[in-house]
Amino acid sequence: MTPLVPPALPAARELVAPALRAAVGLLDPVTRRVAAYHLGWADHEGRPADAGGKALRPALAVLSARAAGAPPDLPSAAAVELVHAFSLLHDDIMDGDRVRRHRPAAWTLFGRSEAILAGDALLALAGELLAAAGTPGHAAAAHSLSAATRRLIAGQAMDLEFERRAEVGLEECLRMSADKTGALLACSCAIGALAAGAPPALPQALAAFGAEAGLAFQLVDDLLGIWGSPETTGKPVLSDLRARKKTLPVVAALTGGTPAGARLAGLLAGPGPLAEYELREAARLVEDAGGRAWAEAEAKHRLDVAQRHLADAVLPPSVRTEFLDIAAFITARDH
Amino acid sequence: MTPLVPPALPAARELVAPALRAAVGLLDPVTRRVAAYHLGWADHEGRPADAGGKALRPALAVLSARAAGAPPDLPSAAAVELVHAFSLLHDDIMDGDRVRRHRPAAWTLFGRSEAILAGDALLALAGELLAAAGTPGHAAAAHSLSAATRRLIAGQAMDLEFERRAEVGLEECLRMSADKTGALLACSCAIGALAAGAPPALPQALAAFGAEAGLAFQLVDDLLGIWGSPETTGKPVLSDLRARKKTLPVVAALTGGTPAGARLAGLLAGPGPLAEYELREAARLVEDAGGRAWAEAEAKHRLDVAQRHLADAVLPPSVRTEFLDIAAFITARDH
Repeated sequence: MTPLVPPALPAARELVAPALRAAVGLLDPVTRRVAAYHLGWADHEGRPADAGGKALRPALAVLSARAAGAPPDLPSAAAVELVHAFSLLHDDIMDGDRVRRHRPAAWTLFGRSEAILAGDALLALAGELLAAAGTPGHAAAAHSLSAATRRLIAGQAMDLEFERRAEVGLEECLRMSADKTGALLACSCAIGALAAGAPPALPQALAAFGAEAGLAFQLVDDLLGIWGSPETTGKPVLSDLRARKKTLPVVAALTGGTPAGARLAGLLAGPGPLAEYELREAARLVEDAGGRAWAEAEAKHRLDVAQRHLADAVLPPSVRTEFLDIAAFITARDH
Repeated sequence: MTPLVPPALPAARELVAPALRAAVGLLDPVTRRVAAYHLGWADHEGRPADAGGKALRPALAVLSARAAGAPPDLPSAAAVELVHAFSLLHDDIMDGDRVRRHRPAAWTLFGRSEAILAGDALLALAGELLAAAGTPGHAAAAHSLSAATRRLIAGQAMDLEFERRAEVGLEECLRMSADKTGALLACSCAIGALAAGAPPALPQALAAFGAEAGLAFQLVDDLLGIWGSPETTGKPVLSDLRARKKTLPVVAALTGGTPAGARLAGLLAGPGPLAEYELREAARLVEDAGGRAWAEAEAKHRLDVAQRHLADAVLPPSVRTEFLDIAAFITARDH
């Protein structure tokens, strides 16, 4: 069964929209246009559009403030979304991904240099929003967000390195995903409480929840990258295998010591692009080698651990429920 | 006559080195290696090297703190250098520049993606250093640095756009240089006073000084890009004209309404790469069209304006002298 979209997501999206627009409005006209397209509120020509993300990170940041008994903190809710948007912009260039959320990736329309600059600008704006808020809590929030950004970059660097390597271990692949996806989600869960000046135990527990839920999310995302439909993922079918990405289910399959895993390794090591029938064969081999079952079980396990971390935190029951609803939603099989 | 290197520069370089190394030490191994190479303290293989920049921005940041009667502030002095390094890393990729400070540009050795990530990481580290310091003064410093970064990005976006455009006005070219070079130098001159919590008048006057001195510096840099020797610039001879860059002397020549300017426009509009004899001809035409004389006069004028801004500031006489020594040094004809 598919959980419904938790109302916290569209609410957060609406809440941060004016702050994001005001921030992007500070940019020069060229960079502003790339950023507005990438953030989904403009088309290629600058005409209004509605193609944004689900505002997962702002929603978590808003809940994080509420967990500390504080009202939503716009600078931190907008800043985590800006860092997320920055990372997608640059990742698409590095990975050569041409499609993002059912639309051409920004770099394919505006050029690589323009997309690099727009990413740089979004990262700078995130820091600017928190610095402008100026409280000690916002300095702690900025510190946490910078450190998360550093880990996000480390994860992407590892991911790129994996593509050039024949053998990748499951442990290092989990570490890569924890950096690339878990760190910013952990920060999003903690940043509102940090901005509100909550005592350390609360943001720590929230960050631990976010890190584990983030890993569960990445595992599900990796599963969808192989077995999800293009309507769901917004990307071409089997695109992760096409790019020979060392995602978690693939690495679990390759390192499981099964005959199917060995055949998969042979298939992925071949020269030139994989044909359609080879992509379908690769997906079957990941499943036969146990990669799919492992990833499904691991996602469930991480979600359990996330829930236990949240159980350790002292926060209003309604906020706890909303955190759990979001975690369930992002790890449901068809998002 | 060439002024000697002001002692504030090597002193600042030594002062910030440990802070920079500690910050870069936080990065993942791949990104750390690219950053260490780009910052000049390691070679391509990670062996110790000594090829760093002149630490102009940290020196200005240190003087800025002293102007406010405060000791040097390491986070802000290191942060301005990190933002400068980030911008050079990304600019070299966008501009396709293969040489930086007499060495191969980082992207040519480590790859474009790795250099993009290293730039991202240096920008994130700059924010992290200031957020970690955590005082209200450092929030003001972070705000100023983020805004300067935004202008630096705007300047680079404009610069890229100029390359695709046939006609560029002198006013917009000056605005581009003020953004691309002036903004970060202005911030460097103000950031130490901001971090120290000085009343607004001081950082404002110091920023105004830095903005004008920065423009003078860019004008001289543009002159060297045409008439400087490779030993001085660390780049191949005539590389700016080779890349058809719309630098200030070139735009002044093109927009001056002279026959030489018209011939220059025709030469630069031609298809394919310019031959060596055409590059020398182009340099001659910039001079005949008055571009060289205009840039020299404009640099002198901007330096005068910078000095007047500094005269408005209340600061210890020895600090004023050091600021002026640095301004004279960076606008001397052979640096």
